[in-house]
Amino acid sequence: MGQPAEKAKEKKQIYKPKSISGFPEWLPEIRLVELQWLDHIRKTFESYGFCSIETPSVEELEVLLAKGETDKEVYVLNRLQATEDDAKEARLGLHFDQTVPLARYTAQHFNDLVFPFKRYQMQRVWRGERPQLGRCREFYQCDIDVINPDHLPISFDAELPAVIFDAFAGLDIGRIRMKVSNRKILIGLLDALGVTDVIGTTRTVDKLEKIGESEVANILTREVGLTTAQITPILELATIKTANSKGLSLAPRNAQMEEGLSELGFVLDNLSHLPEGSVVGDLSIVRGLDYYTGTVYETNLLDIPEFTSSVCSGGRYDDLAGSFINRHLPGVGISIGFTRLFDVLHHFGHIKGEKKSPADVLIVLPNDGQRTAAAETARILRGRGYKVELYHAPQKIGKQISYAEKKGIPHVWFPPFDAGGTHEVKTLATGAQTPASPESWTA
Amino acid sequence: MGQPAEKAKEKKQIYKPKSISGFPEWLPEIRLVELQWLDHIRKTFESYGFCSIETPSVEELEVLLAKGETDKEVYVLNRLQATEDDAKEARLGLHFDQTVPLARYTAQHFNDLVFPFKRYQMQRVWRGERPQLGRCREFYQCDIDVINPDHLPISFDAELPAVIFDAFAGLDIGRIRMKVSNRKILIGLLDALGVTDVIGTTRTVDKLEKIGESEVANILTREVGLTTAQITPILELATIKTANSKGLSLAPRNAQMEEGLSELGFVLDNLSHLPEGSVVGDLSIVRGLDYYTGTVYETNLLDIPEFTSSVCSGGRYDDLAGSFINRHLPGVGISIGFTRLFDVLHHFGHIKGEKKSPADVLIVLPNDGQRTAAAETARILRGRGYKVELYHAPQKIGKQISYAEKKGIPHVWFPPFDAGGTHEVKTLATGAQTPASPESWTA
Repeated sequence: MGQPAEKAKEKKQIYKPKSISGFPEWLPEIRLVELQWLDHIRKTFESYGFCSIETPSVEELEVLLAKGETDKEVYVLNRLQATEDDAKEARLGLHFDQTVPLARYTAQHFNDLVFPFKRYQMQRVWRGERPQLGRCREFYQCDIDVINPDHLPISFDAELPAVIFDAFAGLDIGRIRMKVSNRKILIGLLDALGVTDVIGTTRTVDKLEKIGESEVANILTREVGLTTAQITPILELATIKTANSKGLSLAPRNAQMEEGLSELGFVLDNLSHLPEGSVVGDLSIVRGLDYYTGTVYETNLLDIPEFTSSVCSGGRYDDLAGSFINRHLPGVGISIGFTRLFDVLHHFGHIKGEKKSPADVLIVLPNDGQRTAAAETARILRGRGYKVELYHAPQKIGKQISYAEKKGIPHVWFPPFDAGGTHEVKTLATGAQTPASPESWTA
Repeated sequence: MGQPAEKAKEKKQIYKPKSISGFPEWLPEIRLVELQWLDHIRKTFESYGFCSIETPSVEELEVLLAKGETDKEVYVLNRLQATEDDAKEARLGLHFDQTVPLARYTAQHFNDLVFPFKRYQMQRVWRGERPQLGRCREFYQCDIDVINPDHLPISFDAELPAVIFDAFAGLDIGRIRMKVSNRKILIGLLDALGVTDVIGTTRTVDKLEKIGESEVANILTREVGLTTAQITPILELATIKTANSKGLSLAPRNAQMEEGLSELGFVLDNLSHLPEGSVVGDLSIVRGLDYYTGTVYETNLLDIPEFTSSVCSGGRYDDLAGSFINRHLPGVGISIGFTRLFDVLHHFGHIKGEKKSPADVLIVLPNDGQRTAAAETARILRGRGYKVELYHAPQKIGKQISYAEKKGIPHVWFPPFDAGGTHEVKTLATGAQTPASPESWTA
């Protein structure tokens, strides 16, 4: 001790840690709100009979890249020090969504599942994108999907938005609007009009809200090479916005378009119990992902106009797991971009974490002699469903109360200071202090 | 359609997916049990006032490897296609425990936390080990830790086992025994005896239960080079098993040993409310990890004698975050090896998943004309807290009931088949069918 060599050793090397861009992390008071949100969403999903599954964070690269998309965003795992085993094993990557894992899961466990398979999944996913507001590299998605072999009734396309509205209703995110369409309508029209560049056309139509009708017409003419005879009915269709099937009474030009109109009408009419304006049939919506074949959804936050990206999207896909199983597995799904939503709301000051502890009650420790009795009081209250912290040391009462205040614990419990005494409870918000019994007190 | 080229295209390439060794995945009915377990553990942690934090799945390698341990088990992340950005960014690895992230978190957010900082953390962690029963590469840990600058009262060392016993009491895992010791006792004795190879000695003593007293004495003599005069008091100490401080009345040989005995006595005496035999002071316990400096815990499943590894371990560390902050931060923590526990119980047939859906009630869809009314019934029941699935199509009633049976949904609800009809509910377990009202029915 006290030798120069020892002293030198005491000068520790400090590595000051910092946040990793794109990997959000919250303080306890914000995390408490995040947990409440996740709990509410999960409860809502379960209230419609969706079952939970969780898949590993990784999939084999062969599975992840089966669709050939988003390659460069995939994070691949390597052990820091490779061993001989590594070469024998499949290469693994972190999943970038929950749809590919669902497809793999459904194919792999096909014989053990009961169909229609209604599952929810709330996990972190990873994408090596450049981070920005609402776009993280590690983020939660909350997905519900329904899968049924061969034929999946359209009623599920109408159920998903109802679930999402119940989920959002319990979160303090202001007004939202879900836009619903059916790709068969626009695709059917393009087919009837003899448009060959379907992708170029739908991508342009998708920008309608952002750039306006005349600019869309310009691009369709100049870049996609459509004629006015083609553009006029496309724009006529794409500008339709309606709350129900009545607004869809346009003449179908072929069977595909007719099917799409009928499906979209069913979905809208079965959502008529939702508040006016919350669901809109909007025929300009097409969604980028190529696997959608019918219904498509996207959702905007109306009270945060600065943020225009969708916070909840999805749609119907004709053949989910075609790469993994020789069965026809149509599905419909929707995904809440949970971390995106939370991050954006937090950024605009709408998430105010006020409690740093989940506890309802802090029990004061009067003196060391009362430790056992105070612990017993805590156990009684816990047995009655309360969350109870027992202060750890017989410090000054003011210091113990101040701890409750700092942590946002609403009630301070004073157990007897000696064998004959009584219990009292102080509610910090009002300052009121009253006698109480651990067996019968209610918060 | 029907052209040879088209037909050839229809022959899909199928990649039959398989499980990835070490990355567990459950069917919905087993996942439902896993969720119930996780919920119960979380509820217990919160009932003692522990707050939730979640850290990113990754840390900078510099943080992960600050202690220089478990290098080769760390999974490093690389993007599939590297971009120019990658070279500028810190290298990231998946965390292999929740203690290093907690240390980093506490150091990084030091000024925003209220101390004593009582946090729980229930996340997946990753280790590139060779998988075997109870040892996965991706697994959940459920950790509670308490951290306080400069001085952390011993009362927390006694609180943690109480929390764990409440958590385990709600899981169907049979009898458990937690062994508690305090490293200061054995280390103090070794110091008093002039033993220099402390690590070699404690590692040998740790094997006492497995290999027995005489074999431990043999190794201490032959391999560690101790004398009989040293071995006798070591074995005398290490064979002590006691439920309370009374069994610790041995003469301390120095201040460290005395402190250890007093701390362990306090911990045991404050756990006397737990069932007899559930907590044992066992002085042979030392735990492998070098950062423990006082109390140490480990826990065994008594009813699964085939599995001898600890399912819940931890201890006190003098200086948690010394590599990241120039403050002295003592802590005490314990970790449930959740996936290990669940995997082992499942392997031995103790996890029986019986429900494939969380729903309490399946509402029969009598015919398409009653769809809106049936959906309204579902909404009323959901509003009253029930989990309700509405059958999707007006199929034969027998088929709808069979769906409820296959998914383990206990009640089948028959809404009116026409405008004037009444509601009835059938409970599948008993077959009883009675009239019911959505506004007042109770399960």
